[in-house]
Amino acid sequence: MTQKGKTPAESAVEQNVYKIFPNDLNSKHTVFGGLVMGLCDRTALIVAERHSGHNCVTAAVDSLTFLAPAHSGETLVVKASVNRAWRSSMEIGVHVAAENSFQGDRRHVVSAYLTFVALDDDGSPTDVPPVLPETETERLRFDAADERRAARLAMRAAQK
Amino acid sequence: MTQKGKTPAESAVEQNVYKIFPNDLNSKHTVFGGLVMGLCDRTALIVAERHSGHNCVTAAVDSLTFLAPAHSGETLVVKASVNRAWRSSMEIGVHVAAENSFQGDRRHVVSAYLTFVALDDDGSPTDVPPVLPETETERLRFDAADERRAARLAMRAAQK
Amino acid sequence: MTQKGKTPAESAVEQNVYKIFPNDLNSKHTVFGGLVMGLCDRTALIVAERHSGHNCVTAAVDSLTFLAPAHSGETLVVKASVNRAWRSSMEIGVHVAAENSFQGDRRHVVSAYLTFVALDDDGSPTDVPPVLPETETERLRFDAADERRAARLAMRAAQK
Amino acid sequence: MTQKGKTPAESAVEQNVYKIFPNDLNSKHTVFGGLVMGLCDRTALIVAERHSGHNCVTAAVDSLTFLAPAHSGETLVVKASVNRAWRSSMEIGVHVAAENSFQGDRRHVVSAYLTFVALDDDGSPTDVPPVLPETETERLRFDAADERRAARLAMRAAQK
Amino acid sequence: MTQKGKTPAESAVEQNVYKIFPNDLNSKHTVFGGLVMGLCDRTALIVAERHSGHNCVTAAVDSLTFLAPAHSGETLVVKASVNRAWRSSMEIGVHVAAENSFQGDRRHVVSAYLTFVALDDDGSPTDVPPVLPETETERLRFDAADERRAARLAMRAAQK
Amino acid sequence: MTQKGKTPAESAVEQNVYKIFPNDLNSKHTVFGGLVMGLCDRTALIVAERHSGHNCVTAAVDSLTFLAPAHSGETLVVKASVNRAWRSSMEIGVHVAAENSFQGDRRHVVSAYLTFVALDDDGSPTDVPPVLPETETERLRFDAADERRAARLAMRAAQK
Repeated sequence: MTQKGKTPAESAVEQNVYKIFPNDLNSKHTVFGGLVMGLCDRTALIVAERHSGHNCVTAAVDSLTFLAPAHSGETLVVKASVNRAWRSSMEIGVHVAAENSFQGDRRHVVSAYLTFVALDDDGSPTDVPPVLPETETERLRFDAADERRAARLAMRAAQK
Repeated sequence: MTQKGKTPAESAVEQNVYKIFPNDLNSKHTVFGGLVMGLCDRTALIVAERHSGHNCVTAAVDSLTFLAPAHSGETLVVKASVNRAWRSSMEIGVHVAAENSFQGDRRHVVSAYLTFVALDDDGSPTDVPPVLPETETERLRFDAADERRAARLAMRAAQK
Repeated sequence: MTQKGKTPAESAVEQNVYKIFPNDLNSKHTVFGGLVMGLCDRTALIVAERHSGHNCVTAAVDSLTFLAPAHSGETLVVKASVNRAWRSSMEIGVHVAAENSFQGDRRHVVSAYLTFVALDDDGSPTDVPPVLPETETERLRFDAADERRAARLAMRAAQK
Repeated sequence: MTQKGKTPAESAVEQNVYKIFPNDLNSKHTVFGGLVMGLCDRTALIVAERHSGHNCVTAAVDSLTFLAPAHSGETLVVKASVNRAWRSSMEIGVHVAAENSFQGDRRHVVSAYLTFVALDDDGSPTDVPPVLPETETERLRFDAADERRAARLAMRAAQK
Repeated sequence: MTQKGKTPAESAVEQNVYKIFPNDLNSKHTVFGGLVMGLCDRTALIVAERHSGHNCVTAAVDSLTFLAPAHSGETLVVKASVNRAWRSSMEIGVHVAAENSFQGDRRHVVSAYLTFVALDDDGSPTDVPPVLPETETERLRFDAADERRAARLAMRAAQK
Repeated sequence: MTQKGKTPAESAVEQNVYKIFPNDLNSKHTVFGGLVMGLCDRTALIVAERHSGHNCVTAAVDSLTFLAPAHSGETLVVKASVNRAWRSSMEIGVHVAAENSFQGDRRHVVSAYLTFVALDDDGSPTDVPPVLPETETERLRFDAADERRAARLAMRAAQK
C-alpha cells in the first residue's frame, strides 16, 4: 500500500540552537569537528523520525563539509529538512550557521547530507512516506538528492 | 541615552530541539532534572545575548516547574523569549514540551522564568534595550514579569 | 497514619565538594550556570531521598540566585537540608560557596530552594515525614518555607 | 620545494580501541551514530597530524557508512591511515569493527573517508608530504582516493 | 624554615556525595571503575590543596581497592583526609561508601591511597606543612603511611 | 579442569590513541589525573576480557604513577597487556606515553598495574587461562607480578 506523502515543512527543524562553550573546543580552540557531526546527526534524526513515524538509524553521512571554523562564544544555528525518500530511506539535508548573537550576523559553517533508514518494531527496514516538495528550493533539493544517490551507487559499484 | 526598544520576536528562539538519550536519564529513567535546567539556561542565554547585544550571566532562576516527566526516545522542544527588561536585567520565559516525534503529539513538561544581567567589557552591568511587546500574549507576559519581580523583591525584603 | 517526624540534621548533606575544572566554564570563563543548577539538584535530591525514604523527583526550582561568579581552580562547597515538608512534598534549601582551597576563604555564591515530591513504587505521590526543626535557624527556615509556598500559590492563582 | 614523501605505515593508527558503555547508546540501545563519527574524526586527526607534521582541521566527511549496529559491551576497534595527499589536503580512510572481546570475533561496522587540511602557524593551508603507497592495498586506496575526489568536485560543480 | 604543622581535620573532606546515574554505569550495570577513580582523585586533590596551600598534582595512586560493586540509584559518600606529609608530597586516604539513601544503610566499597605533590608558581615541588595527627586513628594512619611508602620504595628498587 | 594458557600477545592492546582536548584538562592546564585513570581502566578492561573470555571487573589499581604531565594538543598512546593470572584474577600492565604527533617524539608519562577479576554469568569469580610469557620482557613482568602480589598481601596482613 502506498503511503500518503508529506511535505518537508511537516518534519523540518527550523532552528536548533547550541551555544558553544569552552569544553566543545579542540586543541586549536575552534569547535571540535566531532561535536558538529554529533549535532547534525541528532538534529537530522528528529527530522527522519518525524517524517517516517518510525525509529530511524543513521545509514550514512554522505557528505559533511566544513566551510569555516566556529569559535567559543558563538551560537550554532542548525536547520534540517528531508530532501527525498526512497523505499525505507531518506536523505536529510542539514545547514549549520555560526551566529554572533551580540550583533546578529551569521555565516554558513557546515553543509551535510545524511541518509537514515526507518525500522519497524522488529528492526527491519520499513516503508516511509514519499516527500512532496512544495517550494522551488525543495524541488531542487529533491532532484539533487537523486543525483547524489546515483553518483554514490556508481562510485560504490566502480570501487568493488 | 535611552536605547531603542526591540520586540520579543527579534530575539526569540522558536524551536530548540533535543533528542533524549539514555545518558540523560536519572535512576528512575526519566529525564534528569539538571539536564533540563541546563537546557533552559543555555537556550535562555542565547535570547538574552540576542536582545541585549552583550555578554550575559544568569542572575536567577526565579521559577522552574516540572509539570510532567519526559522519557528516553522523546524529543524536548524548547521555546524561549524575553518577557521584559529593566535597566540591565531581563526576564526570559522558557517553555519545554516533550514530543513523540513518531506521532507528532507534544505535552508541556516545563515552564521556567530566568533573569539574566547584561555585562559590558569590564564585567559591570550595562543597560539593555526595553522590550516592546507586540501581541496580546506578549503584553500579558510583559505585565506578569513585573508582578513576579515585585513579589520577589517583597519576599526578599520580608525574609531579611 | 501520621509518620514519625525527622530532624533536618538526619538528612542534611553537610559538605559536598566539587573542584571546578576548565570544562565547567562558559564562554566568559566563569562557572556555567547549568552546572551549578545540576549540582544543586543532585545534592538536594539526596536530602529528599534521605528524608522521605522514597524515590523523589524535582517538582520545581522555586528560586536559585547567583550572588557572585565562581572561577576555575576554586572548589564549590554545597550544603543542603530539608526546610519543611507538606503531604508528599518537601522544600530543600541549598547553599553554595566558592572556596579558595589554598587560603581557605569562602564566599557565598548561590542560594536555592527546590521542591521535591516523594513517589511510591507506582509513581504516585506518597506521604513524607514532617520536619522537626531543632535549632533557631531551622525554625526560621521552617517558617520561611511556608511563606514562600503561600506566595508561590498566590502568584500562580493571580496569573491564571 | 617538494617535500619528501611518507608511507601510510609511518602515520597509521593500527588499533584504537573503545569499550562501549551504556552512556554511548541512543534510545534504540545501539551505539549513537554521533559517537562513532566523533571517534572516527579524532582517530583520523591523529593520522593527519602525524603525516603532515602540522595542525590539521577536518575539511569534510566525504562518506561515512554504517554497515551494522554496534552494541553495549562490545569493543570498537578503529584503524585509520592516509590514502592520498594533494597540496595541503589529505584523505584519511577509517575502518571500524565491533569486537566481541570474549570470543574474539569482529565484524565490520563502519567505513569512512575524511579529508583534512594542514595549517601553518598563521592558520593558512600549508603543503603536506606526498603519500608513498607501498602495498597493493595502499596503491588501490591511493587511486580510489583520486576518483572519489574527482567525483566530489564534479558533483559540486553540477549542483552550483 | 620549618612550616607550622596542620591537623588532618583542618583539610579533611567529611562527606562528598555523588548520586549514581545510569550514565555512570559500565556494561555490567555497576558503577564504572574509572568514574570512582576520578571521584577519588578529585576529592583527594581538594584535601591536598587545603593542607599544602599550593597547587597539587597527582603523583601516584598507590592502591585503590574495589571491595564491592555500587549500583544505579545508590549514593556514593566519599571521605578523604591527609595521612602524612613528607617534604613536598602527601598521602591522602580516601574511603568510599555506597549509601541506600532510602533506608540509610551504607557499605564500604572502595579504599584508596593517593600521593600528591605540591608545586610552587614555577611548577617546582615545594615544602608542605607536616601532618599533626590528633586521634588514635589518625596516628595509626600516620604510621601506616610511612610503612606503605617504605614498601613502595623497596619494591621499585627491587624491580629496577 | 585446567584451562589452556594464552600468550600476552593474544590479548594485548598495542596502541590505543587519545588526542587530548581542552576539556580533558585540570585547572593547571595539564591532563586531569582522573581522565588518565579512566583511560587506563578502560584499556586494561579490554585486555582482561580478551584474555579471560569473561566479563571482568576492576578489583584494584595496585599502582599508577604519573612520571610527567601531558598537555593539550598531545596524543596519549596507551599499551596494555596481561602480566600474570592467578585463579580468577589477572594483573594488567599499562604504559601511557604522550606523543607530539607533529614531530613524532614520545615520552613515558604513566605506568600502572591493575588487577581484574573474571566473573561468570551469575557474577561469581571464575577461572581464567594461565599466562604463557614468550619474550624475555614478558617473563620479567610475569615474575614481577608475583612479587607485587606477595608484597600487597603482606602489607594488607601487616595493616590489619
